[in-house]
Order: sequence, then C-alpha cells, then structure tokens
Amino acid sequence: VKLHILGCHAATPRSTTNPTAQVLESRNQLFLIDCGEGTQVQLRRHKLKFSRIDHIFISHLHGDHFFGLPGLLATFRLMGREKDLHLFGPEGIKEAITIILRLGEAETGYTIHFHELKGSDSECILDSEKISVHTIPLDHRIYTNGFLFRQKPKLLNLKIEVIEQYGIDTAQFLNIKRGSDARLKDGKVIPNSELTLPPPKQKSYAFCSDTAYNDRILPFIKEVDTLYHDATFLESESHLTAITKHATAREAATLAREAKVERLILGHFSSRYKDLHAFLEESRPIFSQTFLAEDGAVFEW
Amino acid sequence: VKLHILGCHAATPRSTTNPTAQVLESRNQLFLIDCGEGTQVQLRRHKLKFSRIDHIFISHLHGDHFFGLPGLLATFRLMGREKDLHLFGPEGIKEAITIILRLGEAETGYTIHFHELKGSDSECILDSEKISVHTIPLDHRIYTNGFLFRQKPKLLNLKIEVIEQYGIDTAQFLNIKRGSDARLKDGKVIPNSELTLPPPKQKSYAFCSDTAYNDRILPFIKEVDTLYHDATFLESESHLTAITKHATAREAATLAREAKVERLILGHFSSRYKDLHAFLEESRPIFSQTFLAEDGAVFEW
Repeated sequence: VKLHILGCHAATPRSTTNPTAQVLESRNQLFLIDCGEGTQVQLRRHKLKFSRIDHIFISHLHGDHFFGLPGLLATFRLMGREKDLHLFGPEGIKEAITIILRLGEAETGYTIHFHELKGSDSECILDSEKISVHTIPLDHRIYTNGFLFRQKPKLLNLKIEVIEQYGIDTAQFLNIKRGSDARLKDGKVIPNSELTLPPPKQKSYAFCSDTAYNDRILPFIKEVDTLYHDATFLESESHLTAITKHATAREAATLAREAKVERLILGHFSSRYKDLHAFLEESRPIFSQTFLAEDGAVFEW
Repeated sequence: VKLHILGCHAATPRSTTNPTAQVLESRNQLFLIDCGEGTQVQLRRHKLKFSRIDHIFISHLHGDHFFGLPGLLATFRLMGREKDLHLFGPEGIKEAITIILRLGEAETGYTIHFHELKGSDSECILDSEKISVHTIPLDHRIYTNGFLFRQKPKLLNLKIEVIEQYGIDTAQFLNIKRGSDARLKDGKVIPNSELTLPPPKQKSYAFCSDTAYNDRILPFIKEVDTLYHDATFLESESHLTAITKHATAREAATLAREAKVERLILGHFSSRYKDLHAFLEESRPIFSQTFLAEDGAVFEW
C-alpha cells in the first residue's frame, strides 16, 4: 500500500501549499480521497495516471476538499475517458457537479456513478474482491465522513512440499488456496490446515479529516495500519477546536494510542503555523510513530 | 494601464501552465477577467491584492475559464471581506455559485451582485466615473462574451500660465477642468479652449477569448490600444477551428490589422504546441506589433 499526499493544508491553496487530496494505491488500484483546488495539477506532478483512478471519495463539501473535482472530471473527458467512474460524497454533490458540467455543455462521455452519502452510522460503501471501504462518521461543522480502507484477504499460500508429497492434482489448487480441504484419489481427505499457510496481512488505512476529537471513531480505527487524522491546531490553540470542529495534534495522538494503530499521519495544518515540527513534538510523547503529512510525501506499508 | 496574464493556456491546468485568467489594472482598480482553476494561487504569486478586486468578468462557462471562481469567492470570505463584489458572467453562473457555496454552508459574509448576461448584442455592463465595460459577442461553442474596457475621459489639463495671467480664482478650476468657460470679476467670459489642454488619451483594452474568427467584432475592437485574441491554433491546424470554435494566430493578426489596434496579444494556446515562437512567426508578417501572452507576463501601456 502506498499513500500519496497531494495536499495536506487547511483552507485556501497557496503558492507552496495545497488543500486536501490524497491517493491511496492498493493492489494496482488508485483511490482518490478528497479533491481540493489544484488536485489535477498535483496528480500530474506526482506522475499518477488519471486513467488509473476509478473511485473518488469526498469527505465533505467544504471548498478545500472538493473544488478541484469539476476540473478533474472535465479533464477526464478531454483525455477521452470511457471507463465508468464511481464518486462517493455527501448528498448534494450530484446536483452541484451536474449543474456545473451542464453549464459548460460538457457531456462527460463516460458514466459517473454518484454514490451520495447521508447516513449518520458507518456503512460499507465499496465491497470488491480486492478491498472494502466503510464510512467513518466524523464530527465537523457540516456533514463529513472519514473512510476506512481494508484490503480483502488474499488467497492462502500453499505448502508446496506437502502438496507434492500427497501428489495432489493442480486442478484442486485454487480451491485449496480458497480454504477447501483436498481429496486424494483414494478418497482420503487432507485438511486444509495441513496444506496451507496464512496469507499476508490485509492492510488498512483510515482517513479522518476534517473532524473534532471524537472517541466514537475508536471502533472503526482500531488497530489499523495507518491513521491520517485532522491536526489543524496545536494545543496552544485548542480553544479554537470547539467552534471550528477541528482537532489538535495531541488529540490525534491520543486517539492513535487508544486505537493501537501502527502509525499516525497528521495533516490539515492551519496556515498560522510556519514550522510544523511543533506538531511532532506535541504528538510523539503520546504516540511515538507519528509522522507529518507534507505535500508530495509518500508513505508505504 | 497594466495587464497581468495569470494564465493563458487552453483546456486543463498543468504543472507549468495555467488556464485563462487576467487582471487589468486601471486607475487603481483591479478587474479580474476569467478565473480558471488555480487563479487564486496565481494572484498570490503575482502579489495582486485580493481586496483590490471588486469586479470579476467571466467570458463563458467552460471549466478552464471559471473553475477557479468558487475557491476565490470562498477565500474572499476567509479573508474577512465585507465589500460588495460585482460578478459578470453568462446566465446560470448565479445558480452554480449559489449551490456550491450553499453545500459548504459557507455564507460569503459579503454581497455578490450577480450580473447575468444573455444578450446577443454588445451592451454596456459597467459605467463608472473611471471606466466603462461593454460586452463583445463572440463566436464559440457556448454563449461567450469578450469585454471591451475603455477608460473614461480624464479632466482637461489647465494651462496654468494663462489662468494666472487672467487671475482666475481657484474656485473655478474644477469646472474649467470639466470643460466650462471661466468668468472674470468684470463679467468677461474666457472660453474653455483658451484655458485648457486635452486630457491624456483614454486607454482601452479588448479581451476576445474564446472565439472563432469573427469579423463582426471589428467595430468593437477598432483602434483599441491592446487586443487580446484567441490563438489556440496555428494555420497548420486551421481545420480544427470550425469544430472547436477557436482561432489561429493568422486570423487574430488579420483582425488586429483590420481594426488598426496598437498591439495584439495572442493567447489560449493549445497544449499541442511546445514552442510558441511559431505563433509570432505566423502573426508578425501580418501585424508586426504582436506579442505572446505568457503566464506571469505584464503588459503596460
């Protein structure tokens, strides 16, 4: 799994900082998460192929998380896209996108499947052979979802030497990898556990931004490999979290520790902070495996 | 008058090129013309103060001319803008902008006056003490206007030595500058022509993009100081102009020559051309005072 941070800053795009957008790369699929203004340029800079994106997830409809979307959808068309696109986002996103594209008389030429979200409980919004995606209800000024990505179990690994010893036919291999027992020519049954090793661990990623501190998300982010969490402020500005519904680095670290995640990435920094090192200093005493998102950073696990 | 080219390229924003946006600076006012994605970042790069923009003109509703607008309007709010904003653009722009801002529950905090355009004839859309703006109906795939900016006449210049010779009272100066005759204490009238010199020339600018070649614009652009014209293609690709409704460098030069403008700026280059010098080579034999728009260029006259 690779996570490409295209932008990680709050509010408005600037010369050197970009609003929220990320690409999660898993088993050859690219999942775009949020799409602030300038995301299509960031995709180009990071050499991520537009044609590999079939799923876009929008957490909420504040501009710094979706004003890059109309441009990206229009560019897909200019590039001659024909493949379907799945777009997940809050109710209302379909109307907005449809009106904007209609004004430009720009038929997309490809089908957009709008999956409008309005539930206040977590729900499974994508369930494929390779991955599942669940919403994580967040606590922000407007309706907002985080997203939990979890790879599907891979097939079991065969113990080749045991298989050969029993002389098991290759025709049974796929079923064994899926968990079936094997049957020998003489009718004898060999239990699957004797023939296989567990598959590699299913990797997981939880994106939680924008949000105030909210420990109701703990069951969803429990033991995920990587948690990206809103850290708009330092504790010195914690008085701003209640009205803005954002979190501090300390709060993000506390959730990471409670949820026993493997690593925490902080992001959505307010432009008031020139030196982001203070975010690490605040977070690491609570949760050591903390990292800073930076535009252009790539995390791999 | 200064013209800041923030972006001058067709279709999609890229790492090094920006879609259409310009700022015309005239007598301390900034007029933003078109607003492709990334315009607010370009404004920052060029150190043009957001607070000095009170008028925005959108030629048409293709994404590369207006997808930067929602972000700019949202940033005005974040900056605490209270001043009114005047927004001129095709019918439909109000609905689109209103829906997008409503989705983010982002009250602007300042008033946007939407001036929706739908006429097919040129009309005066702004008429202030300092400047007038007329639409220039263009020939594009969707409803599109160019804009003609013309400074208002300044006050006449006083011939100070003549004024002193007659002993004319300072109380009469403003009226004389406005064209009135002067009256001496003995009742004698001195004609204005004896007391004044003509004001500096009123400067003018015509923005004509996107458009196919269309000689019906000649009366509007006649003898303007500066004409910016669509030059998406070279003549070698002139077969593409009919379907895309764009122009070639040669066509733009022909219009500039016929209209006897002072200078021509070519822009809206297709991304197929890596070396833009060919645009000058095609245009200058027809109209020598041709210049290339470049992102970041500033023209002054």
